[in-house]
Amino acid sequence: MLSPTLISQLRSIVGPDGVIDGAEDLLVHAGDAAEADAHTDVLVHPGTGEETAEILALAAKEGVPVVPRGSGTGPSRGSMAREGEIVLSTARMNRIRSVSAEDLIAVVEPGVRTEDFHRHVEEMGLFYPPGIAMDRPATLGGNVGESTRGLRAIKYGGTRNFLMGMKVALPTGEILQTGARTLKCVTGYDLPRLFTGSMGTLGVATELYLKLLPLPESRITTVAVFNRARDAAEAAARMLEAGVTPSILELMDRTALRAVDKKTGAPFPRDAGALLLIETDGVFGTAESQAARATSVCHDSGAGEVRRASTAHAVEEIWGARKAAFSALAEISPATVLEDVRVPRSKVGDLVGSLRALVEIEGVALAVFGHVGEGRFYTVIPVNPAIEEEIERTERIVARLSEEVCSLGGQLGPERSVGVGDRTFLDRNTPPEKLELVTRLKKAFDPKAIMNPKVRL
Amino acid sequence: MLSPTLISQLRSIVGPDGVIDGAEDLLVHAGDAAEADAHTDVLVHPGTGEETAEILALAAKEGVPVVPRGSGTGPSRGSMAREGEIVLSTARMNRIRSVSAEDLIAVVEPGVRTEDFHRHVEEMGLFYPPGIAMDRPATLGGNVGESTRGLRAIKYGGTRNFLMGMKVALPTGEILQTGARTLKCVTGYDLPRLFTGSMGTLGVATELYLKLLPLPESRITTVAVFNRARDAAEAAARMLEAGVTPSILELMDRTALRAVDKKTGAPFPRDAGALLLIETDGVFGTAESQAARATSVCHDSGAGEVRRASTAHAVEEIWGARKAAFSALAEISPATVLEDVRVPRSKVGDLVGSLRALVEIEGVALAVFGHVGEGRFYTVIPVNPAIEEEIERTERIVARLSEEVCSLGGQLGPERSVGVGDRTFLDRNTPPEKLELVTRLKKAFDPKAIMNPKVRL
Repeated sequence: MLSPTLISQLRSIVGPDGVIDGAEDLLVHAGDAAEADAHTDVLVHPGTGEETAEILALAAKEGVPVVPRGSGTGPSRGSMAREGEIVLSTARMNRIRSVSAEDLIAVVEPGVRTEDFHRHVEEMGLFYPPGIAMDRPATLGGNVGESTRGLRAIKYGGTRNFLMGMKVALPTGEILQTGARTLKCVTGYDLPRLFTGSMGTLGVATELYLKLLPLPESRITTVAVFNRARDAAEAAARMLEAGVTPSILELMDRTALRAVDKKTGAPFPRDAGALLLIETDGVFGTAESQAARATSVCHDSGAGEVRRASTAHAVEEIWGARKAAFSALAEISPATVLEDVRVPRSKVGDLVGSLRALVEIEGVALAVFGHVGEGRFYTVIPVNPAIEEEIERTERIVARLSEEVCSLGGQLGPERSVGVGDRTFLDRNTPPEKLELVTRLKKAFDPKAIMNPKVRL
Repeated sequence: MLSPTLISQLRSIVGPDGVIDGAEDLLVHAGDAAEADAHTDVLVHPGTGEETAEILALAAKEGVPVVPRGSGTGPSRGSMAREGEIVLSTARMNRIRSVSAEDLIAVVEPGVRTEDFHRHVEEMGLFYPPGIAMDRPATLGGNVGESTRGLRAIKYGGTRNFLMGMKVALPTGEILQTGARTLKCVTGYDLPRLFTGSMGTLGVATELYLKLLPLPESRITTVAVFNRARDAAEAAARMLEAGVTPSILELMDRTALRAVDKKTGAPFPRDAGALLLIETDGVFGTAESQAARATSVCHDSGAGEVRRASTAHAVEEIWGARKAAFSALAEISPATVLEDVRVPRSKVGDLVGSLRALVEIEGVALAVFGHVGEGRFYTVIPVNPAIEEEIERTERIVARLSEEVCSLGGQLGPERSVGVGDRTFLDRNTPPEKLELVTRLKKAFDPKAIMNPKVRL
């Protein structure tokens, strides 16, 4: 338990309203997408970078761990705290400071909701491509911590490609400004990239400099219906070879489609085996010619119907359904195990094919969906943790999936290896020299090891 | 001086041919683009990652500094050694191990010449966008160390956007594999990006996993002739606002054009005040419509002639002339001071305008050329170090340039602050908390501080 003295010191930094330590109030700020019932002793809401730095300095002096938190929507447990830890929320640092259409740069605080930022810049004719592929109110700071990519990463790259610089409060109590507001700064070590994906283990971002693009003139959404998920995956691989550069290229298999249909009603044919959801963008002629090519590749790869969304409402429904996949699947069983699969993109078809076979054998409604165009997708395995047999089955499936993925030259994302409760389904070792190096690296930023210590990168 | 024992230990690691310590043989491996007459005691050529790691372990044990070296073509003095240092050349690790058109990934050794790699993948219908913007035989490993961007970075990004993973020999003697061969790995700290631009201060890359793209179907080169450099710079800024995404967008001013014309004969009108060199690419219709838009923006911004290169030879000549700018300018005076200027892109026109005024006042042939579309360009100031007055003039110009750049919210690249001989023209301080953090970060990788210790990042 945290001492009352510490809590009153926190209050004197951020003001009485900035500290929450009542059990009921804390409930809404605990947990994340992976686990709802997390523990939190105290939550502190700094309003500025200086307050953030003061909190970290105090925590370092007292040796108390700090868990930075955006909106707690990540599936990686990065924002979850344990007993005796301070949760530091960025919710009060939520201003869009400036957006320059001329220089294509925005300065924002970390607590800004990503979707609010998207809307804000789009109204100015600008475009910030990164963002989560799920129906959750993530924050820009959370996106940095998790190195979020989003649906349009296949063409534009993810958060790490758009974060040009930042201010970071360090656990030494200092505020570091790194990177630049000018484009393409390569001076010194690339610290903005090092913070991207560091899951709150190195410091807390208090200001972000984000690169923007002009909003594309035209966007076309195309949906291709396949009987088999394997064919859809292979069409995705062929599309890139055929010179199509889609801005989105997503697969949803039958299980994912059914879950979404059950939750929200999906705007897709009920009997579809799998869908490819495609967006092409650019100046008008480009979006058009790319959509035409994508359509013909889908037909050549065995698609039945290929249709284009003709209204803004239809477009919204389609991407809304895709973004609902994760939460819809989470509702089909008491728990789910999410794996983040990466394989060379030419191997996605093979892997999707063997997953189908595994599903038949094990009789489980394993779902496949995601960014197949990048060789990356999610599998969701439903499991009831109360039934030992289901846990064992899940262990078998994950082990088999891991084998397949490794034999194809890919890997499973270790940040998803969260298992159910304390059970981890797979021991995903990092080579020991990396761990040692990583420990030393972490120590360079965080000598007292107070920053989100449960996370091992 | 290095001890004979150490040199014989190096020979036993790499074989007798792998160590060069004769004064004459060493001459060809000393210096770089910034300084020709550098000192080198011993040069060692490992053939494998294991040999590289053994050399580093030996150097760490003996406390002898190691300077990694590609082809020594960088302007940053990163590859230059001092007395008592070992130069570690990657020239023998120069194989392209594999290129997969299906997975759009190449595995290469660091000593592969970038232009050889470009040719190799283009013959397969593939495309590796990063590469230097100068006429020098740089290596892929050198590009990583320097975080090279190249002419096409405005559309595609630089080396850091294409390095997916790597093997690195560490000064602890270990070999670290980091990142992945699959696309878009976000697992753990982003070490490939940390090595990118680290100038050999953290370790030596021994294998690189590079992302590839399909070769664009069509590329169109357009040259726009302006009377004033300022108008050309403003046209570049307007082009992006008008929805053009050029794959190259470069400015050359009158002084740069004249220097190139004198050296190689430039394929441009002799009386041009400045040129914009533009490449648009993509599927056929896109390259075409983007070129048409770029042309009309140039006309609207005051360009006289705007022409399209109609033969492969003309295209080669144009980009060859651009790439020759730096070496041609280096020949117009006994020495030159290169500054790497970054300002918000909307400010490039203003800055180019005030540089023109400065040139009038000081009566010096200061040249401006580079990636104006990214808000980044080079200035080259000719100086004769034997004439005190010219040195003082250069100091005044750099100080003034620095003031202007800062007042526009930009910065000068510190890696160029090399001055002439021992004279540095500007004290570009990094804030102290950054230096301390950077020292700790460096120590995490290199506890004995043997890796390229002269470089301060």
